[in-house]
Amino acid sequence: MNFEVFVLGTSGMMPIPGRFLTSAMVRREGELFLFDCGEGTQVSLKMLNIRWKKISAIFISHMHADHVTGLPGILMLSSQVDRDEPLYLYGPQKLKEYVDANRKILDMYINYEIIVKTAEPGVVMENDEFVVEAFRLDHTKPCLGYTMREKERPGVFHPEIAQSLGVPKGPLWGKLQSGADVTLSDGTVIGPNQVMGSPRAGRKFSYVTDTLYLDSIADHVRNADLLLCEGMFASDLASSAIEKKHMTAAQAATVARDANVAKMGLIHYSPRYTDRDLKQLVAEARKIFPGTILTKDRMTFDIPLKD
Amino acid sequence: MNFEVFVLGTSGMMPIPGRFLTSAMVRREGELFLFDCGEGTQVSLKMLNIRWKKISAIFISHMHADHVTGLPGILMLSSQVDRDEPLYLYGPQKLKEYVDANRKILDMYINYEIIVKTAEPGVVMENDEFVVEAFRLDHTKPCLGYTMREKERPGVFHPEIAQSLGVPKGPLWGKLQSGADVTLSDGTVIGPNQVMGSPRAGRKFSYVTDTLYLDSIADHVRNADLLLCEGMFASDLASSAIEKKHMTAAQAATVARDANVAKMGLIHYSPRYTDRDLKQLVAEARKIFPGTILTKDRMTFDIPLKD
Repeated sequence: MNFEVFVLGTSGMMPIPGRFLTSAMVRREGELFLFDCGEGTQVSLKMLNIRWKKISAIFISHMHADHVTGLPGILMLSSQVDRDEPLYLYGPQKLKEYVDANRKILDMYINYEIIVKTAEPGVVMENDEFVVEAFRLDHTKPCLGYTMREKERPGVFHPEIAQSLGVPKGPLWGKLQSGADVTLSDGTVIGPNQVMGSPRAGRKFSYVTDTLYLDSIADHVRNADLLLCEGMFASDLASSAIEKKHMTAAQAATVARDANVAKMGLIHYSPRYTDRDLKQLVAEARKIFPGTILTKDRMTFDIPLKD
Repeated sequence: MNFEVFVLGTSGMMPIPGRFLTSAMVRREGELFLFDCGEGTQVSLKMLNIRWKKISAIFISHMHADHVTGLPGILMLSSQVDRDEPLYLYGPQKLKEYVDANRKILDMYINYEIIVKTAEPGVVMENDEFVVEAFRLDHTKPCLGYTMREKERPGVFHPEIAQSLGVPKGPLWGKLQSGADVTLSDGTVIGPNQVMGSPRAGRKFSYVTDTLYLDSIADHVRNADLLLCEGMFASDLASSAIEKKHMTAAQAATVARDANVAKMGLIHYSPRYTDRDLKQLVAEARKIFPGTILTKDRMTFDIPLKD
């Protein structure tokens, strides 16, 4: 069961050659989920050169142009395939106004249903297998971070124990695996915890941009397998970062360390930095969190299932 | 006095890797003029890697998303420099609504004046040196082609003739060159046509997309030094082109031939065509107009002054 994260862009404020605007895509069991969609996101998605048909949901951090102006293109691109399911868009309050105004003025051809929901801190989307939660960030506009977290999977089933307890191979095994008690012919009741290991943790991906450094971010992204986190500036521009309500790479690393994440990839680089400069940002971050990654456009992270 | 045309994109309908959406930029005497602005135009402009500060005017063919969704990015990028002059936007009626709605909803930071004018067929912009004219095309939405045409320059001044007619070197020469008669000390009147060659033609660039083939297009682009013309489909899709109100490459070549243009570059290629396929489109066009160019992103045309 795959859980991949594709970095579609790493630039903040404006796209530049080699760096599209900050955006990430999760592919889980063939379903696609997009986080932010600035100008050019569809081009980077095509450059990935993966097979895909439709995006299930798009999560928008905030309503600055560099995080949304790729939406009209993605919405029209999504009309190139037939789909029965609606596309869900989640984001701050103005998202619906933005989508509606552009659809109307540009008379966009859309052959499927678009459902725009205003995201509030807390659970934004949930099904049997995973949950997407939003949390409040602090930027010059209302802004949300997102976490996509799989629910726990049942523990490993031990057939040899089941047999030793007298549970015959067959439908009763399936019942135990699904979490239900079974009653043997002699009246003995056997519970799942007798034949199965402890539940296995799900995987967790967190996406954080654009924001001031906040202690609370670490609570929301705790133990993530992958955190993509804005690190727009080097430490010498820390005061400028505060003024513009952004984070330095070192602050992103502080979040990653305090939250005990497995890996942290920097995103939303200031266009002032050349690729060479970015090595300096990452060096500053690694002093605090050695697992910091110099994220580049179309870098792909494969998060394996947990035992 | 330079007159360059930079092709910023050649793709129709959607941007694809290697082909941004159809857009062209004229640089004349350091002033920049943009024709259409789809998603990614600012990236291609940056990839040109030329020195530039500000765009004077943007001309929009029509209000389909693939011709305008790069505008928010360009408008914000243009706030990165100080400018006193307003930016003029010319296009169909909905352009103002589009710009206003996006500025408002996205709360865009703009530090200069934007003046949106609805373009009608005829003169759209004019000054002492050049004129931009719009002409009606026939697409699924109101659509305009554009021609940017320099005014004639005065003919070459012949100092030896002036001297032989008794006009002394000095301010009287300048007066003749500026087009005025001069009176000599003996009362003789000398006119500019006695000392100057015939007026020298200005240069002409034409931009035509998206449209059905129309006979009238050739009248508007007549004798252009460079015509960039939609040739979205190969001839085997001629009926599909009509249905979608687009042109084939062969039709673009017919326009170029009938209009006696110097060069014609194809633009607005269907994303269905690979770079290899495009050679076929160009081959079809060259049978009709040998001066057809297989236009690619960031191709640059330098139109020299005429003698």
